Amino acid sequence: MSRYWNERTRAILPYTPGEQPRDQKYIKINTNENPYPPSPRALEAMRGAIGEGLRLYPRPECEALREAVAREEGLPGIDHVYMGNGSDELLAWAFEAFFEPGRQVWFADITYSFYPVYCGLFGLDYREIPLREDFRLEPADYAGSPGGVVLANPNAPTGLMLDNANIEAVLAANPDVVVLVDEAYAAFSGQTAAGLIDKYPNLIIARTLSKSHALAGLRVGYCLGQPPLVEAIRRVKNSYNSYTLDAVAQAGALAAIEDAAYARAQCTRVIATRERIRDALLMRGFECTDSRANFLFVRYPGVPGAWISDALRRRGVLVRHFGKNPRTADWLRVSIGSDADMDRFLEAVDGALREYGIGGL
Amino acid sequence: MSRYWNERTRAILPYTPGEQPRDQKYIKINTNENPYPPSPRALEAMRGAIGEGLRLYPRPECEALREAVAREEGLPGIDHVYMGNGSDELLAWAFEAFFEPGRQVWFADITYSFYPVYCGLFGLDYREIPLREDFRLEPADYAGSPGGVVLANPNAPTGLMLDNANIEAVLAANPDVVVLVDEAYAAFSGQTAAGLIDKYPNLIIARTLSKSHALAGLRVGYCLGQPPLVEAIRRVKNSYNSYTLDAVAQAGALAAIEDAAYARAQCTRVIATRERIRDALLMRGFECTDSRANFLFVRYPGVPGAWISDALRRRGVLVRHFGKNPRTADWLRVSIGSDADMDRFLEAVDGALREYGIGGL
Repeated sequence: MSRYWNERTRAILPYTPGEQPRDQKYIKINTNENPYPPSPRALEAMRGAIGEGLRLYPRPECEALREAVAREEGLPGIDHVYMGNGSDELLAWAFEAFFEPGRQVWFADITYSFYPVYCGLFGLDYREIPLREDFRLEPADYAGSPGGVVLANPNAPTGLMLDNANIEAVLAANPDVVVLVDEAYAAFSGQTAAGLIDKYPNLIIARTLSKSHALAGLRVGYCLGQPPLVEAIRRVKNSYNSYTLDAVAQAGALAAIEDAAYARAQCTRVIATRERIRDALLMRGFECTDSRANFLFVRYPGVPGAWISDALRRRGVLVRHFGKNPRTADWLRVSIGSDADMDRFLEAVDGALREYGIGGL
Repeated sequence: MSRYWNERTRAILPYTPGEQPRDQKYIKINTNENPYPPSPRALEAMRGAIGEGLRLYPRPECEALREAVAREEGLPGIDHVYMGNGSDELLAWAFEAFFEPGRQVWFADITYSFYPVYCGLFGLDYREIPLREDFRLEPADYAGSPGGVVLANPNAPTGLMLDNANIEAVLAANPDVVVLVDEAYAAFSGQTAAGLIDKYPNLIIARTLSKSHALAGLRVGYCLGQPPLVEAIRRVKNSYNSYTLDAVAQAGALAAIEDAAYARAQCTRVIATRERIRDALLMRGFECTDSRANFLFVRYPGVPGAWISDALRRRGVLVRHFGKNPRTADWLRVSIGSDADMDRFLEAVDGALREYGIGGL
């Protein structure tokens, strides 16, 4: 604390990202990274962007990149797309552009923990709507929000997905406010709400290349929506930082998006591993939500989540434990790594269960 | 405009960056880029960062980079340094962290035109304090600001520099508010206020690698200050976007900062060209401020700035004209390019003056 901090700085509670140890001694399945390498074409394009040209500013409006996204998403043009430095930046801009102090923004009590942080930063009121007992989101709970709605779909850390009919129900029940759908994990779900953009002027979708395209290190995300919403994001961005995507990131992201078949193939592998590990955990007596993301959300009845998390760490495996909320204190979020990493995860799980006196497999 | 825009989005007036034509047909001396290539060691380091590791999140706190900056700037440690996606992002965070709605922030009437944009975005009141007739900033005008002070030093687009004794006078006359010194161009001035950080807890300095290190395309900047101010910036950043510097940018920036001798040599070349072109323009009858930046600020008495700007453009040379403010309407900001580019600029100037009926050289 310092007398030079303004009220906002004193009040905010910053987001805490998952640990990022660099010593390679852990199986790192705590931050939902993709276990497979980025597209070789993306790496090649980045190498091509490194040279004398970096002395010049990058394209502030990322036109080529937005065109590739529009094409890939089946949208009419670049006025339906805007790029940002990871989807976090786009989420921030959306909160900043559409939500109004004094008019409650609604989102789930168990969801991406950055949403309340944005509300703190921008002085927004919010209401956390409890998920049902089984973590299911009930669309009827979201009718008539006074300020806006934020849905992560699939949700994190639960992994549960709303189908598009339910997303549409939320959109139709909130015609006067913006519904922000955070599709960070959509590539692992087989569904996107992008097809609803044409019909709903209040829909804005955020995406990231971090997980789907194995480019967490590059910081590229985008949003999709009708042009007036995209223009609002553009106005906020250009009031904040003219150039947030560097020239190397623009080149790499363009090639990655154009190499869609590669990204889809890696996501398919992740999905197959997810299903295999889910089955293996169910067999061991774990409860697992029906996750459609690149992670599982699991608990072992009767064993504290914090204890399992520590026991796995002692065995060299990092998973994410959200202990603050009592509803999730016994649950663990387990990112889907490579098959080899997940086999070591299962070994660690068995060791932990034996240590607890349960046995494992 | 759209009914989904909040009040902020309706009210803001976004910043307009200089044109970035890509067709190579212009001598581009309108956006203050460095004419020389980035450090070969920086390019090499970026190439080394491109690979499978990009599937992982980058280091959110950029520790290695901050350590290198602290070493280079002679500061005690990384708690005196914070990194951002260009200095624009750091300026945004500083406005957001330190300045309070209802308490006027003071800056010059002729300075970086992003400052009033930030005030619009964050709902801050501001006062534009007129520079003197000769564009000189009078430190006594800045005593006792109710909300904070922002000084670009050297100032843009005038290029004029305040010496550290005057910066100190402003700091001492504002002990209760933060004084933000924007040193985007300091590498071309031979002076920095970094040595005052130890003495003034209200000083925060913003820097960018865009110009000094020829890395505008990479988007890296940093701020310097005592730890409580740096911690405020960190809090705002972590409430907005956990990772704004991608792994390639972190690697490139680290090598560029460590290759300080290279950057200094290129800046010295730019300064030499600046002085040569300034003399050439004075000989032709131009007025030039005593610029200590990598641009000149010039006018030809009796010839409208807009006309010269257009005449140069017709001759393939882009300079920046700030027509909105009547005080600068007859002035042009001319970035310092390579010697060859500046010779072509002088030819274009002579052609333009002849066309106007003045003669040139």
